[in-house]
Amino acid sequence: MGNIRDIAKKAGVSVSTVSRVLNHHPYVKEDKRQAVLKAIEEMNYTKNMNAVHLSKGQTFVVGVVLPYINQSYFSAVLEGIAEEALASDYQLMICQTNYEIKQEIQALEMLKMKQVDGLLICSRACDWEVIREYQMYGPIIVCEDGRGTDVSSVFIDHYAAFEKGLHHLIEQGHRRIGYCIGRRTGVNSYQRERAYRNIMNELGEPIREEWIFDQCLLLEDGERVASRLIKLTSRPTALLVTNDQVAAGLVLQCQHLGIRVPEDLAIIGFDNQSISHVLQLTTIELPLKELGRQLFQLFLHKDNVKHIEVSTQLIKRLTV
Amino acid sequence: MGNIRDIAKKAGVSVSTVSRVLNHHPYVKEDKRQAVLKAIEEMNYTKNMNAVHLSKGQTFVVGVVLPYINQSYFSAVLEGIAEEALASDYQLMICQTNYEIKQEIQALEMLKMKQVDGLLICSRACDWEVIREYQMYGPIIVCEDGRGTDVSSVFIDHYAAFEKGLHHLIEQGHRRIGYCIGRRTGVNSYQRERAYRNIMNELGEPIREEWIFDQCLLLEDGERVASRLIKLTSRPTALLVTNDQVAAGLVLQCQHLGIRVPEDLAIIGFDNQSISHVLQLTTIELPLKELGRQLFQLFLHKDNVKHIEVSTQLIKRLTV
Repeated sequence: MGNIRDIAKKAGVSVSTVSRVLNHHPYVKEDKRQAVLKAIEEMNYTKNMNAVHLSKGQTFVVGVVLPYINQSYFSAVLEGIAEEALASDYQLMICQTNYEIKQEIQALEMLKMKQVDGLLICSRACDWEVIREYQMYGPIIVCEDGRGTDVSSVFIDHYAAFEKGLHHLIEQGHRRIGYCIGRRTGVNSYQRERAYRNIMNELGEPIREEWIFDQCLLLEDGERVASRLIKLTSRPTALLVTNDQVAAGLVLQCQHLGIRVPEDLAIIGFDNQSISHVLQLTTIELPLKELGRQLFQLFLHKDNVKHIEVSTQLIKRLTV
Repeated sequence: MGNIRDIAKKAGVSVSTVSRVLNHHPYVKEDKRQAVLKAIEEMNYTKNMNAVHLSKGQTFVVGVVLPYINQSYFSAVLEGIAEEALASDYQLMICQTNYEIKQEIQALEMLKMKQVDGLLICSRACDWEVIREYQMYGPIIVCEDGRGTDVSSVFIDHYAAFEKGLHHLIEQGHRRIGYCIGRRTGVNSYQRERAYRNIMNELGEPIREEWIFDQCLLLEDGERVASRLIKLTSRPTALLVTNDQVAAGLVLQCQHLGIRVPEDLAIIGFDNQSISHVLQLTTIELPLKELGRQLFQLFLHKDNVKHIEVSTQLIKRLTV
């Protein structure tokens, strides 16, 4: 393995020129830069890819920031990203944040440190200000309505999607409506809660906290909701459930408990996962895989700032 | 940003010593190496993490090799890995191989190039020989019975698991048994097929190719199997289904088509996913998350070669 002196000698340049090339110093003449890179390649200077990345400034790795891999919402987005990454020969660096700002900053630092060529943030914990600071180091695409910022984004209008579900229930005569959600903090959840409160206010219905079920992420959580519902003295006649897995658990447990769906309880799921198709669940389709694909495409084309909305759709089946 | 000359000056060593340190040259006195690293740190020599990795030789990234992210088997293993990675502050580099040897070699090269500190191979396409060649570059843990090799492994005995399911069906009086599987190539599939053929031979039953359904990965594939079953003039009375998602689709579609489960068709799923619990599906529990956790733990502890078998369990519910 040659050292920097050997490279300099072979390339016919000074040691400090080699150093400048390896450190991306701007003031290096292009022919000298090429000579250095050629010498490195010919000498098989180092088998350490970190050194190759130093010289090429590109890793063919994209960072994906998400709270956890094991939530169906994020794993569906990740699937779409993974499909495109496979097609474009990129690898994925998964940065699980556990919804912690510290972890998200660590991912942003990876971009700054050139460990990844770009960052796809599926759920943001940091302020826009922080994210904008890191944009100079490479493309960052955010999975959230970024209009009004200079950060590129692909997003679902969660307010409109929730409104769509609520209006369908109201058209079917429901007024006593509750909802199930993953967590009550976070941008998406806030939009959904706002839609719920506004429409309940328009209806003149009170907000009943016992009809809002949080920590609903998995099939088992739907079962838990059914068991809690049956104990309520005053029950909702309809539930919006922000995840088809949870809605499926709810539907199946209602069968066990003798709650008739949709007669006693109308249910609208979200996502249009295959389980909702099999169970004939009315659902709001969220094109999450498409969202993931678009995130990767925006990264790949490194265009100017762009905002892409992917549209949702009410799919009427048998649970309303 | 300083260059190598500046570092050499600050550290009181020669330029070639700096170069040797950055290139992991073995013949550098420890005090000089420390002086160079200290100078780099103080001068904030470069913000490029690839250079830091060069000097530290550690990335805190583990590579995970799997065919696709979106198959429930692999996503469950990945979940277990991700849980442990989060707890130990490691990031994950996901290498999707699409079952192609070329892609797997690329992942092995990442280990060689020190882009990752270790490699967890969830499904192997390369020969053992190839994997053994790369072991000198860092820990490689394989998710397959590696006994008899010097590659550490965490594994499920798929032969025994399939046998367990078949014996349960036979105890319940079944002889006309088929199975559904993801693909017919691959190590796990081969073990399962071998178990099936051996036991059918013992029973004196012929192997009926039309009772072996492949490409069964998703819920929709279970629906497809039900629709094909109903057209068969001679049907099996029981199916082993190597994935609970597929088994769930099959059970639900059987309801639609008027095939009674278990009276007309007994079904055993695999994995013990939550959907199998809700649908009261008899299943063979494969502790996939645990398998993922163990894979990461074996990497983390970099022990001598170890082989860990995670055990499977028949869970009797209502579909047999």
